Amino acid sequence: MTDALVVFTPSGKRGRFPVGTRLLEAARKLGVDIDSVCGGRALCGRCQVTVGEGSFAKHGIDSSAAHLNGFTATEERYRQRKGLVEGRRLSCQSLLEGDVVIDVPPESQVHKQVVRKRAEVREIALDPVTTLHFVEVQEPDMHDPRGDLERLLEALRTQWQLEGLSADLHVLQGLQKALRKGGWQVTAAVRDGRRIVSVWPGLVERIFGLAVDVGSTTIAAHLCDLGTGEVVASSGLMNPQIRFGEDLMSRVSYVMMNPGGEVEMTSAVREALATLAGEVAREAGIEPDLIMDAVLVGNPVMHHLLLGIDPTELGGAPFALALDSALDLRAADLGLDSAINRGAGVYVLPCIAGHVGADAAGVVLSETPYLRDEVSLVVDVGTNAEIVLGNKDKLLACSSPTGPAFEGAQISGGQRAAPGAIERVRIDKDTLEPRFKVIGCDLWSDDPGFAAATRKTGVTGICGSGIIEVLAEMFLCGIISKDGVIDGGMASRTPRIEPDGRTFSYLLRDGEPRIRITQTDVRAIQLAKAALYAGSKLLMDHFGVTHVDRVMLAGAFGSHIDTTYAMVLGLIPDCDLTKVQAAGNAAGTGARIALLNKAARREIESVVKRIQKIETAIEPNFQQHFVEAMAFPHKTADYVHLTKAVTLPAPKELAAEEGEGRRRRRRG
Amino acid sequence: MTDALVVFTPSGKRGRFPVGTRLLEAARKLGVDIDSVCGGRALCGRCQVTVGEGSFAKHGIDSSAAHLNGFTATEERYRQRKGLVEGRRLSCQSLLEGDVVIDVPPESQVHKQVVRKRAEVREIALDPVTTLHFVEVQEPDMHDPRGDLERLLEALRTQWQLEGLSADLHVLQGLQKALRKGGWQVTAAVRDGRRIVSVWPGLVERIFGLAVDVGSTTIAAHLCDLGTGEVVASSGLMNPQIRFGEDLMSRVSYVMMNPGGEVEMTSAVREALATLAGEVAREAGIEPDLIMDAVLVGNPVMHHLLLGIDPTELGGAPFALALDSALDLRAADLGLDSAINRGAGVYVLPCIAGHVGADAAGVVLSETPYLRDEVSLVVDVGTNAEIVLGNKDKLLACSSPTGPAFEGAQISGGQRAAPGAIERVRIDKDTLEPRFKVIGCDLWSDDPGFAAATRKTGVTGICGSGIIEVLAEMFLCGIISKDGVIDGGMASRTPRIEPDGRTFSYLLRDGEPRIRITQTDVRAIQLAKAALYAGSKLLMDHFGVTHVDRVMLAGAFGSHIDTTYAMVLGLIPDCDLTKVQAAGNAAGTGARIALLNKAARREIESVVKRIQKIETAIEPNFQQHFVEAMAFPHKTADYVHLTKAVTLPAPKELAAEEGEGRRRRRRG
Repeated sequence: MTDALVVFTPSGKRGRFPVGTRLLEAARKLGVDIDSVCGGRALCGRCQVTVGEGSFAKHGIDSSAAHLNGFTATEERYRQRKGLVEGRRLSCQSLLEGDVVIDVPPESQVHKQVVRKRAEVREIALDPVTTLHFVEVQEPDMHDPRGDLERLLEALRTQWQLEGLSADLHVLQGLQKALRKGGWQVTAAVRDGRRIVSVWPGLVERIFGLAVDVGSTTIAAHLCDLGTGEVVASSGLMNPQIRFGEDLMSRVSYVMMNPGGEVEMTSAVREALATLAGEVAREAGIEPDLIMDAVLVGNPVMHHLLLGIDPTELGGAPFALALDSALDLRAADLGLDSAINRGAGVYVLPCIAGHVGADAAGVVLSETPYLRDEVSLVVDVGTNAEIVLGNKDKLLACSSPTGPAFEGAQISGGQRAAPGAIERVRIDKDTLEPRFKVIGCDLWSDDPGFAAATRKTGVTGICGSGIIEVLAEMFLCGIISKDGVIDGGMASRTPRIEPDGRTFSYLLRDGEPRIRITQTDVRAIQLAKAALYAGSKLLMDHFGVTHVDRVMLAGAFGSHIDTTYAMVLGLIPDCDLTKVQAAGNAAGTGARIALLNKAARREIESVVKRIQKIETAIEPNFQQHFVEAMAFPHKTADYVHLTKAVTLPAPKELAAEEGEGRRRRRRG
Repeated sequence: MTDALVVFTPSGKRGRFPVGTRLLEAARKLGVDIDSVCGGRALCGRCQVTVGEGSFAKHGIDSSAAHLNGFTATEERYRQRKGLVEGRRLSCQSLLEGDVVIDVPPESQVHKQVVRKRAEVREIALDPVTTLHFVEVQEPDMHDPRGDLERLLEALRTQWQLEGLSADLHVLQGLQKALRKGGWQVTAAVRDGRRIVSVWPGLVERIFGLAVDVGSTTIAAHLCDLGTGEVVASSGLMNPQIRFGEDLMSRVSYVMMNPGGEVEMTSAVREALATLAGEVAREAGIEPDLIMDAVLVGNPVMHHLLLGIDPTELGGAPFALALDSALDLRAADLGLDSAINRGAGVYVLPCIAGHVGADAAGVVLSETPYLRDEVSLVVDVGTNAEIVLGNKDKLLACSSPTGPAFEGAQISGGQRAAPGAIERVRIDKDTLEPRFKVIGCDLWSDDPGFAAATRKTGVTGICGSGIIEVLAEMFLCGIISKDGVIDGGMASRTPRIEPDGRTFSYLLRDGEPRIRITQTDVRAIQLAKAALYAGSKLLMDHFGVTHVDRVMLAGAFGSHIDTTYAMVLGLIPDCDLTKVQAAGNAAGTGARIALLNKAARREIESVVKRIQKIETAIEPNFQQHFVEAMAFPHKTADYVHLTKAVTLPAPKELAAEEGEGRRRRRRG
């Protein structure tokens, strides 16, 4: 028998095989990355290839001799059943009949790249923890007294080279019926190449995974196809724990005052997860039983409550976490075994420190400061700001007590980002008249039709990004001094400056409700932004830099505030404005990366271990930076530079980086 | 600093260490097996040693120079608190001050031998899967932001050289409280050197394990101290599944007729396990929370029901097991997480084949035919007989359909072994008058006082061993012919031979109830014993022997029948009577071995894999052996030989080999 040369592109792997060898087999022997769920039975169609165009001569192949066997009846049946693009072949049905160049399209690769929206972020190779394996199992007979499991294991060994597997008890409980219902053909889901976690009768081609960011306010979930990496559905819910307290510390207090209260909160958040899983499955039109994996991120208090751990220790110094390592759990551990597949794994990202949680780890995994030469500052603002600074050589993290002012809490007209909340503000430098936009309406308040367009939502208050903008605009117009004092002298120029006890306020909106910016509001934002700035500065001191190369603003707040205004107010250290970016819901993106690529889990675990944790509370420099950062802007030079450079992008572009950032905000 | 020579006996290990070295440390460095739970803190007292007597010169030590530091105040406190035999030292408090010979008593060894009652069975080294480790954990502070788990892991690493551990979620849920309650001293239970499965505040010195034989009729449990191997409590319960059917096949039928019925049976048997765990814990005066391990054996139907697997497939050819491999589960998998420690492991021995279960694997582990040169026949009689034949070179197994006659079922006056059941019978050769004994009374029926002594129990029926004896005695007296026909001609000699339709019966007991042995009873026993014999013979054919060196009769029936009568009736192949032994509840003993020694688990798994399974139903020879074995005795030579050799041991000795055999029978 003669040999034929086969060259696979784009890998360039090549080898000689006897004429008649199946292409899929040749690919496996050469280590060419071709997908297959059905194991070469022309059922799943994952192994499609085309005969290479291009220059055959380049590969040393005489093009006149390049060939495979003819299109087979089996492929024709597949084509009629599922469709097959002209020119495509199933590599499991194609036999080598001469020298040939074979092109493996991206969608036929096992470890295909997952496309992400932001160009500057690295691509993720699809390599989920749970994989599907269709097998034909030997029927039992009186001469073969082995158990059904042992015959399944043999099939997985001989048909998929999977050795030494074990099986979950629930798999054993359903195994005999699955085998008989499937006519001794079943699809096994195998976790980490080690454990059989589900068995279905017949061929199952798609399984799914959930990436969930468990926030204090909202819980956001994405359902991903583990075979393509695609997000097939997304949904968000209010965190039902809100009834126990708006912010984290009030929930911790609830437990302190009501011992055992953590049990209620744990049930509440787990039920919300189950509800979300059901919602996204419905939206995607799939059985929840096909959800085989979940990855969770959350701040330390959410992390503990989700796991059923009393968060009391996080409520006081030294703020000891029960654990900071990542966790590999099973659906049943979190009571999710009837919401998703009983064999599903649940991975929880590691926490970084007592106030820097698994959500921050998710942000780090998404923004990868640890892979870069440049020094990145990554900031995720919630009730606390979680701050990470560093590059490939060193990483530092701290949390800074910003309080909830950036989320609209403790502000006189403040509210959470929701339809009706003022999110954009401009003040005319001459007239000192404001105009604004609210969430849910594309018009400005001085556009014709604004009143009609906002009839449904009304104008209900001002959210975090609105507060930043109004303060920055007030400052740029001279209504607020560098020290943060509302200038009563301006009352002569506009009736919007009103006396308010011994201080003054600025009337942003007359009507119902009347929305004013008071001196107290300015002070609250000053405290919050000083804390944020001081935390960043402290890390810069420890790192030994006076300047950062890149700033990433993560989270709902970060993705929605205008970075220019953030710098006007001095929320973040000086940086080239083109290098300041919103990262969207980077925590959720990190969860998605860990869901789609198992190596990413080991990567973030190892990165988190080497992050140096800085406790702001015991750092004398923190207090000093804090005091110095109360004024805005902290450096006049920046202010001058910025006011000249301001070219505001249209609001739509602001949150477009990652769809979920905006989506989450709308719900929350 | 000078070195001192230390020699440990009985191991003979020796080495030189600087003066001032702790004995326990020297022992560890030399690999001397000394126990410790507290890690050298003079709390647990497990590391006791004595200064060796004997000839110091033999070890090259000048006896005048042999010494340790003086008895310390710490040891004195330990002595006052817990007692310490004169001359004993705690090796964790003893410092080398010169050359010395140290004797490590057996109870101070980690891998101490567990004493078993039967001399010919190998000893078991104590080496349980779960071990205890007392540690002092670093308190958290603001400068050390690691989680409590990470500090516990560090303590286990530095104080016990345990690397790469993970922790169960329920451990994490209780960890912070345990650490604070214990003042940063806790005891961790570590499973298989890999997983932290429980953490208690302070020092915990004893944990326990359950060995359970889940029989069709009775469930028997032994509670063992995992630190000493000692059985500290035993208990038995009727299997509550009896309400779904007396024997196995009627329970399988119940499931077939009532789909989902397996769920009820699974709950019933799991609840019984939980009850038993509570009973033995109460009997031993310990918290059920200290039960950290369980090992289960049972026949295939019980095995499946216990695991929540529908046993329907076991009810018809090809009798496919869901699995035959051993299983390593957690308490929660079987709903035992509130009955014993949540972190307890549950090990289920492997099954051998569709009708040869994990109980048979337990018998094999206990009787170790695979370690011997001689050919052993191991028989466990229940509704089916499970038969294993072989030696260190080859092992064979089959099950044989004896039916329930040996258990007293389908016999006119038959009953299960219980107080009031006739268990011993003698018939006078001249008068043909019988005398008998019943369970619960040491007197024979013709002893004075028998009526008074049995007033409470009454005489209620005849159990398996009684049936064997009465048939053998009837045969020896000539009442039954070789073909199994009750001889009506004998009616002239005794009125106890009564006509019964076209056949005759023998009146064993007049009164209420009247207990007769009918021709049908004789036929039922003939069928049962022919099946048992034919199964054994079939394995002998396959092995290529015509004679076995040793016969072990396992199980309640096997431990109670008189082996001589068993051979008179031809239940088992010819064998030197001194080599025929009752093994007691060998299945339960096997479970206990697997509980106390983790290597035994790997051993039985590997042995079971190489057992050759013979399916009697498809072996033509089985039918032939069966037909030939109907007559009793099958060989006159045996009969002559045996009737001469009969010297009946007193009944008490019969079941004394293993206490549990008798115990179980009494309950069941």
